[in-house]
Amino acid sequence: MTKSRLEAFSDGVIAIIITIMVLELKVPHGESVEALAPLIPVFLSYVLSFVYLGIYWNNHHHMLHATQRVTGSILWANLHLLFWLSLVPFTTGWMGENHFAAAPSALYGVVLLMAAIAYWVLQQLIIASQGPDSLLKKAIGRDWKGKLSPALYVVAIPLAFWSHWISQAVYVFVALIWLVPDRRIERALGRIEP
Amino acid sequence: MTKSRLEAFSDGVIAIIITIMVLELKVPHGESVEALAPLIPVFLSYVLSFVYLGIYWNNHHHMLHATQRVTGSILWANLHLLFWLSLVPFTTGWMGENHFAAAPSALYGVVLLMAAIAYWVLQQLIIASQGPDSLLKKAIGRDWKGKLSPALYVVAIPLAFWSHWISQAVYVFVALIWLVPDRRIERALGRIEP
Amino acid sequence: MTKSRLEAFSDGVIAIIITIMVLELKVPHGESVEALAPLIPVFLSYVLSFVYLGIYWNNHHHMLHATQRVTGSILWANLHLLFWLSLVPFTTGWMGENHFAAAPSALYGVVLLMAAIAYWVLQQLIIASQGPDSLLKKAIGRDWKGKLSPALYVVAIPLAFWSHWISQAVYVFVALIWLVPDRRIERALGRIEP
Amino acid sequence: MTKSRLEAFSDGVIAIIITIMVLELKVPHGESVEALAPLIPVFLSYVLSFVYLGIYWNNHHHMLHATQRVTGSILWANLHLLFWLSLVPFTTGWMGENHFAAAPSALYGVVLLMAAIAYWVLQQLIIASQGPDSLLKKAIGRDWKGKLSPALYVVAIPLAFWSHWISQAVYVFVALIWLVPDRRIERALGRIEP
Repeated sequence: MTKSRLEAFSDGVIAIIITIMVLELKVPHGESVEALAPLIPVFLSYVLSFVYLGIYWNNHHHMLHATQRVTGSILWANLHLLFWLSLVPFTTGWMGENHFAAAPSALYGVVLLMAAIAYWVLQQLIIASQGPDSLLKKAIGRDWKGKLSPALYVVAIPLAFWSHWISQAVYVFVALIWLVPDRRIERALGRIEP
Repeated sequence: MTKSRLEAFSDGVIAIIITIMVLELKVPHGESVEALAPLIPVFLSYVLSFVYLGIYWNNHHHMLHATQRVTGSILWANLHLLFWLSLVPFTTGWMGENHFAAAPSALYGVVLLMAAIAYWVLQQLIIASQGPDSLLKKAIGRDWKGKLSPALYVVAIPLAFWSHWISQAVYVFVALIWLVPDRRIERALGRIEP
Repeated sequence: MTKSRLEAFSDGVIAIIITIMVLELKVPHGESVEALAPLIPVFLSYVLSFVYLGIYWNNHHHMLHATQRVTGSILWANLHLLFWLSLVPFTTGWMGENHFAAAPSALYGVVLLMAAIAYWVLQQLIIASQGPDSLLKKAIGRDWKGKLSPALYVVAIPLAFWSHWISQAVYVFVALIWLVPDRRIERALGRIEP
Repeated sequence: MTKSRLEAFSDGVIAIIITIMVLELKVPHGESVEALAPLIPVFLSYVLSFVYLGIYWNNHHHMLHATQRVTGSILWANLHLLFWLSLVPFTTGWMGENHFAAAPSALYGVVLLMAAIAYWVLQQLIIASQGPDSLLKKAIGRDWKGKLSPALYVVAIPLAFWSHWISQAVYVFVALIWLVPDRRIERALGRIEP
């Protein structure tokens, strides 16, 4: 019961975040194709953030699939993750409207970093609640993606002030390593599910 | 579990898209009936997009009804479909505010075309995951609507620069062929459901 | 399955409509209590529309509770109802910002009337799908509220151009007759539920 | 059925409220880090309101967990609670944009007070519907948090006109006493759940 409501609430919040982001794509005043040109960076940053939120939704879904029990701390760690994700439309809009300038690109990374940390905290709390035979712990294995991503963000954030293209490249690269289908949890679950 | 969460998330996103579209109907400043006149094209494009999103929700619902197993690729193909649908409020607003001008009408068709392709990809992935006795494959039959719609969009998009009324007529026509109740899947399911 | 997804989607749309309505309550620029004064009519129309949407959610919930089977026509009749409800934030904002002027008050009634008709159509389709022993038909009885409400709206709409206060009074009165707890369906269900 | 739909609808409304609040964080026009400075009070009030809505979602979830039957009055008492919560984005935005000035800080407290009263009414109705052996009544015990919070708001509201910092401190303090994990209901449920 508790778990399904946690899923439903998280789905709701992520669905709304992913959708209100598109409100930053303001309808242009002109009616020509050229009127769309200034929107290209806004559109590109929308695509990137859509992919990131899709990755979070996907991983969140798999994580809860391997969770049996939801405690009060897990509820709050989940809200903490949703808090940082809720700031993504803001940083996406700021970065897009300023054509990937230094400060907005750095802030975009800061929010991604905080979300990654919040995700890691949530994961640790679920593992702790499951005890030594944690299914989730077995499923994520060494969790190299979860460890590499925040490290890359930490590098990308200051680099934005030197060359924001490097930061963008790092953000795209991190999204790509997650997009590669993650069969770890699916495999671990496959062995024990009825 | 996975399937019901996929449904819930898709429902959430489509419900939000369909509802934030109405935010493009900006409250007019005057208080007379005449103040509503400039909103008529915005309202008409809202009606058209509402019907399209209703069709997508309806078909998506039937498609998942005939799906037993959800894989990682299906999750991403579904997000890909939601991405294109999420751009509908933008193209609707642009088309409505510019009284169905050429470029906005063409872009409206481009987003419909991309959504139709994304839907087709999702359908193919579900069929592939079901193997040779695919229930969905049997249900959709020759899928003439699914094949005709993108072909009509491809014709309508360049025509918008010649006469945007023809494009509009094509968009309305495609919506009408889908509105006719589609009993194919219902019938196929009827035979095997308990 | 179909029914629960229909409920979930309708809940989602009504939840979003009820919440984005509050976006019409624009944050005032001043920081004094007086800065709130111009918002009072917007707030009052928000309260009225919140109650109306609450009534629709409540009745919709009871109606689906007495429904066993969902057909394609029921899905579309439901979307038709949601379409008219989705226009409520627009008419609420226009009426509130123009201090309940004649045309906005009339349009508010038109949208309420169309929603009432759409609700009635949906109800008839469910009853038709249930055959002669329709549980819903027994539950609603003579449905005097459902018949009186559209009649009152039809009277209130033209009256708005003579005195908009009469129209407002009618809208408030209709809301009140629905707010009185409707035990008809609950009673009918109580007899047959396990 | 009724209960799960009540949960789903409440989750939807709270998820939307919590997410549209972030729309008050308007994307700044400059691209420098300094452009973020005016947003700091808006951000801080967003954090406070996010925590409050998280507390309500959490408590609402536990309360319904201890509820077996949903009556018509409970449905309306729940909508009444959602009504006051829906005003939180407005008061949050007004307080943030005016740097925690007196009137906005007082109004923020008024909405918190009304939400607390609405929550209490809902709780009483659920307890009344459960009869003398009410599980919820046992679970909340003496409910000192539920009694202390509105009392503190009543003190904080007029104080805002004397020193708004005291009001803010009270609002933060009330949030903190709720953030401390509330094991009362969990414990009571733990004893009777299968």
